[in-house]
Amino acid sequence: MSYVLNLRCVLCGRTHSTKVPYTCPECGEDGILDVQYEYSAVRGKLNRKVLTQRSEFSHWRYRELLPIDNDAILPRLQVGWTPTYQDDALARHVGIRTLHIKDDGRNPTGSLKDRASAVGAARALSEGNRVICCASTGNAASSSAGMASSLGLRSVIFVPQRAPEPKLAQLLIFGATVFRVQGAYEDAFRLSQQACQRWGWYNRNCAINPYLIEGKKTVGFEIAEQLGWVPPEWVAVSIGDGCTIAGAWKAFREFRELGLINRTPRMLGVQATGAAPVTNAFQSGKPLCPVTANTIADSIAVGVPRNWRKAVLAVRESGGAMVNVTDAEILDAMRYTGRLSGIFAEPAAAASVAGLKRAVSEGIVPEQSSALVVITGSGLKDIRAAQQAVSAPFDLAADGHGLQEALQEQGLVPAK
Amino acid sequence: MSYVLNLRCVLCGRTHSTKVPYTCPECGEDGILDVQYEYSAVRGKLNRKVLTQRSEFSHWRYRELLPIDNDAILPRLQVGWTPTYQDDALARHVGIRTLHIKDDGRNPTGSLKDRASAVGAARALSEGNRVICCASTGNAASSSAGMASSLGLRSVIFVPQRAPEPKLAQLLIFGATVFRVQGAYEDAFRLSQQACQRWGWYNRNCAINPYLIEGKKTVGFEIAEQLGWVPPEWVAVSIGDGCTIAGAWKAFREFRELGLINRTPRMLGVQATGAAPVTNAFQSGKPLCPVTANTIADSIAVGVPRNWRKAVLAVRESGGAMVNVTDAEILDAMRYTGRLSGIFAEPAAAASVAGLKRAVSEGIVPEQSSALVVITGSGLKDIRAAQQAVSAPFDLAADGHGLQEALQEQGLVPAK
Repeated sequence: MSYVLNLRCVLCGRTHSTKVPYTCPECGEDGILDVQYEYSAVRGKLNRKVLTQRSEFSHWRYRELLPIDNDAILPRLQVGWTPTYQDDALARHVGIRTLHIKDDGRNPTGSLKDRASAVGAARALSEGNRVICCASTGNAASSSAGMASSLGLRSVIFVPQRAPEPKLAQLLIFGATVFRVQGAYEDAFRLSQQACQRWGWYNRNCAINPYLIEGKKTVGFEIAEQLGWVPPEWVAVSIGDGCTIAGAWKAFREFRELGLINRTPRMLGVQATGAAPVTNAFQSGKPLCPVTANTIADSIAVGVPRNWRKAVLAVRESGGAMVNVTDAEILDAMRYTGRLSGIFAEPAAAASVAGLKRAVSEGIVPEQSSALVVITGSGLKDIRAAQQAVSAPFDLAADGHGLQEALQEQGLVPAK
Repeated sequence: MSYVLNLRCVLCGRTHSTKVPYTCPECGEDGILDVQYEYSAVRGKLNRKVLTQRSEFSHWRYRELLPIDNDAILPRLQVGWTPTYQDDALARHVGIRTLHIKDDGRNPTGSLKDRASAVGAARALSEGNRVICCASTGNAASSSAGMASSLGLRSVIFVPQRAPEPKLAQLLIFGATVFRVQGAYEDAFRLSQQACQRWGWYNRNCAINPYLIEGKKTVGFEIAEQLGWVPPEWVAVSIGDGCTIAGAWKAFREFRELGLINRTPRMLGVQATGAAPVTNAFQSGKPLCPVTANTIADSIAVGVPRNWRKAVLAVRESGGAMVNVTDAEILDAMRYTGRLSGIFAEPAAAASVAGLKRAVSEGIVPEQSSALVVITGSGLKDIRAAQQAVSAPFDLAADGHGLQEALQEQGLVPAK
C-alpha cells in the first residue's frame, strides 16, 4: 500500500477518493487534482537519519511520498538523484553570492520529465494497463516512450504536424507508435484523450493526470537532501505548463511538514517573453489568458498551460516571484552556462539561469542570496537551438596558416 | 602523491619515469606507454570493504588506481558510476542466458570519453596548464571541452572539414576554440600535435597521452563492483582506436591482481565491417594494416587506430574474441536496444550489442554465458544516424480518420 490519502481539487477544494480516475468529477477538465498523503503516518517512516542510510540512489528513495504501492514493479532505468553542483564561476556571472546548479539533463532520456514518466509507467503497469499514451512533441513523449519500453509496455504518442524530425527519432527508437496529426498540438491532444477513453490506455498527459506531478516533485526532495537539509533561499525553475515548479514547491512544503527542513525556498518562476501567460496571471491576479506561444525554448512554449493554477499558487505561497526572459537572454545563458559550468542546457533549461540573472539585476533576488537553478533538460535534445546560440568555428587551411593570429585574437597565445 | 610507479612502453617493454611527457623516447610515436602502479602498496588501501563504504559515487572512488595526486583539483561534473542494468528482454533477443547493460551515455557530456577527459583535465590543471588541446570530431572533443570548462580551463579543438555541424554545436557551447581544418582528420591531428608542442598545451590525444586510458579503465572497475565482484563471463566493447577495450581489460587485470575479483571476463571486441583493421590484426597476428573507414558508427570509424596493440593484447590475454558487424546490424541493434531496454545508444555503442548477438549466433559466445555490453555513448549525440534507423511515423488526419486501422496493424487494438 501507499500513503496516499485522497485527491483534492485545486479548483473547488473538494476531496475525492483515489477511485476517481483523472480530474475532479464536479469541475471537469479544469479541476486538476492534487494527491494528499497521510503525513502523520509518513512522519514516523521518513526522517533525515532514515534517508541518509538509504542506498537507493534514485528518486524512488522518497517512496513514502510517491503514489506507488510497495509491490509495484518499477522501471529499471535509474531516474533522479541527479548531480547538484555548487558553481562559483556561474554565481559570479549571474551576480549572486552562492549558486547551485542541478543537472536534470542527466536523467535516462535526458530530461526532468523522466521523473513523471517513471511514476506513470509504474502506475500503468500496476493497474494492469499495457499501453501508455500522450500528446507531446518533446521531452514528455520521449520520456514516456523510454519508460514504457523499460517495463515492456507499449506507448502511443500523438504529435502535431510541425514536430521536428530529430525529436521524433528518439520516440521511434524507443519503439513508440507515433501518429503525426495533420493539425496543431490541440488536435493531437484531443485525439490522445479520445484514444485513452476509447481503448482504456494509461493517460500520461500532465494536464489531467494528477500522479505525474508527484514524480516531478522528487527534484525538490533531492535539492533539500543534497544541500544538507538547508534549501537555498531561491530556486529558479522555468515554467511551461506549470507542473514542474508546482511539483518542486510541493516537495519543499512536504519536507517542512515532516520536519525534514526548517525553511522553504522562494520559487522563482521563469517564462519566455514569447510565452508568458502564467507570469501574466501571476501579476494580474486574474485567470489565465491563453496566448500564442513564440519562443525558441520549445519545452516551455505553452500558450494554454493547464497547470497554471498550481504554478501561480506555488510561487505565491513560497513568497517568490515571476520573471520573463527574451530568446536572446536564453541563448546567451546557454553559452555562458556551457562555458562556465560545462553543462549543456536545452533552451527551456537555460531560461531558468537567464531568469535568475535578470531577477538579480532587477533587485528581485538580492545579490547576497543563495540560489539554485534547475537544468530541466539536456541541450543534446535540441541541437538546432544550440547552433543558433554559437558562432561558427574558425576555418583554417591544412597548413595551419593563420592559426597564430586567430589564437592571439582569442587571447590563447601572446602576441608575437 | 599517487601510486604511479612508472611508464612501460607497449612496443619495446622498457620502463620510463613519469618525467617522460608522452610516448616512449626510444620508439617514438608508436611507443605508446602504459601506466604502472605500486600494486603492493595499493593492496593495503583498496579492498572490497573499503570500496563498499565509500560514499564517492563517481569514477574517483578508484582514486588509488588513477594517476591523480591526492591534492589534485577534480572537475566538478560527476563522471562515471553509470547505471548497470540486468536486462532479460534484451538477453532473450540476443540469445544469451544473462545480460547486463552498462549505460555510459549517462556521463556528463554523454559518452564514456568523459572518464578520460576528466583525468586529462585534472592532470592539466595540476601541471599548471591552462589549455587542453585535441583533434577530434566527436565524443573526445566535446568531452574535453566540457571538462575543461568545468575546471575553468580553455580548450582548443581541431576538427576536419567534414565534421558535422551538430557535433560542433556542443563544443562551441562549452566555449571551446574550434578550428575547422580544410583537410582530413590526419591534418587536424597533425596541427593539434604541432600546436601542443609549440605552445605547451596539454595534449588530450589518446594516441599519445598514456594517462587518458587510466580514466577509461574505471568502466571496468565499476562493472566488477556493481555486479558484486563477480564480472560476467563476457564483456562486449566496440573498438575504434582500441583504447576503451584496453582500458576496460586493464581494470579487470588490476582488480584480479589486487584480489578484488577471482576471475576476469573474456573481452569481446566489436568493429564495424567498414572499419575493421583491429579485427584484421587480431586474426592475422600481423601488424595493423590501415584502412579507409566507412561506417555509420562514426565514433569507431577509425582507419588508422593508434592503440591497436593494446586492444589486440587485451582481447588475446582475456581469452576473448573479435567480431565485425555491418551497418545494418548496428541500426537494427539501435532499434531493438531502444525498444527493449529504453536505452538510446549511439551507433558505435549499439555495435557492441550487435556484436554480442552475432558472437552468440556464431557460437563464439556460448548461449549459457553471462555477458555485459558497454553502451559507450548516447544516441542523442547522433540523431541523424537514429533517423536512418527508424521508419516514419503514421500520418493521420486531424479528425483521426484511419487511426483504428493503423492501431490494428500494430496489434495495439483488436480487430473490429
